[in-house]
Amino acid sequence: MEKDIIKPKTLPGFMELLPDEQILFNEMKQKIQNSYEKFGFLPLDTPIIESADILLAKAGGETEKQIYRFTKGENDLALRFDLTVPLAKYVTEYYQNLSFPFRRYQIGKVYRGEKAQRGRFREFYQCDIDIIGDGELNIINDAELPSVIYNTFKELGFDKFTICINNRKLLNGLFESCNLKNQSADILRAIDKIDKIGKESVVNEIKKLGIEEDKINLIMKFISINTTVEDTIEELQKLNIQNETFSNGLLELQELVKYIKIFGVPEGNFKIDLTIARGLDYYTGTVYETFLDEYRFLGSVCSGGRYDNLAEYYTDKKLPGVGISIGLSRLFFQLTYNNIIKPNKKSTADVLVISMIEDLSKPAEIATILRNNGINTQIYVEKAKIKKQFKYANSLEVPYVIVLGEDEIKNGTVSLKNMETGEQCELTIDEVVSKFWQENEKNQAINME
Amino acid sequence: MEKDIIKPKTLPGFMELLPDEQILFNEMKQKIQNSYEKFGFLPLDTPIIESADILLAKAGGETEKQIYRFTKGENDLALRFDLTVPLAKYVTEYYQNLSFPFRRYQIGKVYRGEKAQRGRFREFYQCDIDIIGDGELNIINDAELPSVIYNTFKELGFDKFTICINNRKLLNGLFESCNLKNQSADILRAIDKIDKIGKESVVNEIKKLGIEEDKINLIMKFISINTTVEDTIEELQKLNIQNETFSNGLLELQELVKYIKIFGVPEGNFKIDLTIARGLDYYTGTVYETFLDEYRFLGSVCSGGRYDNLAEYYTDKKLPGVGISIGLSRLFFQLTYNNIIKPNKKSTADVLVISMIEDLSKPAEIATILRNNGINTQIYVEKAKIKKQFKYANSLEVPYVIVLGEDEIKNGTVSLKNMETGEQCELTIDEVVSKFWQENEKNQAINME
Repeated sequence: MEKDIIKPKTLPGFMELLPDEQILFNEMKQKIQNSYEKFGFLPLDTPIIESADILLAKAGGETEKQIYRFTKGENDLALRFDLTVPLAKYVTEYYQNLSFPFRRYQIGKVYRGEKAQRGRFREFYQCDIDIIGDGELNIINDAELPSVIYNTFKELGFDKFTICINNRKLLNGLFESCNLKNQSADILRAIDKIDKIGKESVVNEIKKLGIEEDKINLIMKFISINTTVEDTIEELQKLNIQNETFSNGLLELQELVKYIKIFGVPEGNFKIDLTIARGLDYYTGTVYETFLDEYRFLGSVCSGGRYDNLAEYYTDKKLPGVGISIGLSRLFFQLTYNNIIKPNKKSTADVLVISMIEDLSKPAEIATILRNNGINTQIYVEKAKIKKQFKYANSLEVPYVIVLGEDEIKNGTVSLKNMETGEQCELTIDEVVSKFWQENEKNQAINME
Repeated sequence: MEKDIIKPKTLPGFMELLPDEQILFNEMKQKIQNSYEKFGFLPLDTPIIESADILLAKAGGETEKQIYRFTKGENDLALRFDLTVPLAKYVTEYYQNLSFPFRRYQIGKVYRGEKAQRGRFREFYQCDIDIIGDGELNIINDAELPSVIYNTFKELGFDKFTICINNRKLLNGLFESCNLKNQSADILRAIDKIDKIGKESVVNEIKKLGIEEDKINLIMKFISINTTVEDTIEELQKLNIQNETFSNGLLELQELVKYIKIFGVPEGNFKIDLTIARGLDYYTGTVYETFLDEYRFLGSVCSGGRYDNLAEYYTDKKLPGVGISIGLSRLFFQLTYNNIIKPNKKSTADVLVISMIEDLSKPAEIATILRNNGINTQIYVEKAKIKKQFKYANSLEVPYVIVLGEDEIKNGTVSLKNMETGEQCELTIDEVVSKFWQENEKNQAINME
């Protein structure tokens, strides 16, 4: 019977990794998870499919266009496009069962039907943490998150990165004091481009909005403050802006900075950046962006902020929160694409057992002993010459190979070959186990340093 | 401004857990993953959305009806309904980059728009492993998988479970020898009901198919064999069925049984069950089902088998494989619903820092020291009386609470309270760290036993 062969193809915009890349990706994901749990965040795993009216309660514009929405039977469904809306749903739905402040992390895939282009994914992992208060939430929570960011990126192997911090109340207060509240969105849009178009062009754009020169000067003076954390606060005080929102923002920023340091973030890893606004209508206080100093062109690798009301579309309860998110798929793509990191492991096995004998009882027994002793072990059981078996070991870059031949079986030993150094020795299986345990202890000691 | 409040509701058939349940669920998932990696399986993470023509190349009937299928732009898309079809796609697409035998695990969500009913989910986790050969695949691989099942369920905390094994070639050979090949599907359907309707009714159903009595007797004699592994093989030989398929099946079964034991599965944890068929057109050799002995009513908790050709719809290459799958969402639901397991942890933090002082510098410093020493730590920073803070600690069932008051700060100590025993002692922070490390070492030693 002739069959139609369908050429298999993964959809564009959907990340699919080879095993060595997947191992690295999973390692990063695990490190992020461990770091989040170190701060006592609770795991959450909400459905990928939700009712469209729930997901879109707040959305509009771009989100609405990008969303994967469809019907099944009579249900109007959609795939989640972030992890914040599902959190709002969750907190409202299970409010009675949760303890506040509710601290949760969620690491999962979200979906946006964006134009496919390099590094833009339609399915991608977000790694979120949020702290949700019931009615109110102390500013010290805002200071704890930079510590989570710091720990997480240290765990991921980075030293040189900067957590940039701002407070939306400063910007809002500044605009209020200038009677520019109604134009604030337009002004922020112009400021947001400063990295791309430069200060002068920003001034020109703001001018076009018909804003008086003295006000423009004040705005530019504000966003031009770029100095140490202490001096920034001093400079902000010197601006002498008489506005309650501004004053509150300044007090929050001072408190924030004090506690960020106590929470162990070195001064070299955070700064105040008064140009950061992050979205127009969501964040209400502290905002964060994080940049890898040597790879600033990657954009922010971890962002977030404080919001007044997580679930206003689902409940009358006031649930303020503060959160951050790492876009892991995008980050992973950028880091590997730019050769900043690369896969260094092609196998989950520590050792591969191969042999030159017909009956595989002994190799199977050896593999089982190793596994029972906690050593990840693979056994090659196909009929193949020893050369082909070694080729397989090499292709998987297994750290160790155990070879079993007639001699070893007679001697009650195995040949253990270190595939990196080429070193080979004949050992009893007990000696092999001890060797792996010793190495394991050594590695643990290194990790604890 | 009056807002429309939308009552948030998770869709029926979609599992969503409270934090304590989620912690337990994640623990099980992690144990399964560790067990799969102990055998050297490689991780994989394919997209949840695929081209509909790829996913449905083989499907039909029930699958086609249940699938979530929709268009986005011009694309005809569908959500994966298992992890095997994506594997077939993956292996074909990346054939050149993979080493065979290719051993992969995938733990991920799949989607089936089934009728929602208790314990049936529309979104659920499958935890799959498969070994794919290029052209051929030794039967010893089939013997390794029961060892994976055994290890995994032991890790999950079970002792009393039975891995039931059969070989489709025995059934097929039996039918061939009786000239009943064309009716085999109908006969298998009848046999499949034996657990529910009993032996006699099965005989009646087969009779209705117009099959001669001596053939029915042979079939019933075959499926009635229910004894030790060794005796089963002897009884099968005694049937004296002259058919090549049957003989091959018998040889495979013998080899399988020999190696299952060598791979360390105790005789009490596996048996031959000649009534197991598992689907009609997919599996071609070994088949597995796993039952928890004390909770047989849960049905099979881990199933799978050998297939001749993984990707016949995508490639002319012959890619035989053998695999198993654990339906984790369903298993988790059944185990918790029937009180076989229950959540035992409500927090990821080992310790919660609370205090009775205005300035939280010291508590934040203490929390940071603990975290830097690998101890999962949460700090309570809201303004609240100590009673409310303890209530929070109790609601999260945090194992330890550190209390900081004026006295402790003066003494350079903290009060550490064991929340289970109520024991409380005043220690320096170094002593607290040592205590946690010692406990950690003790736990590790217990885990290694």
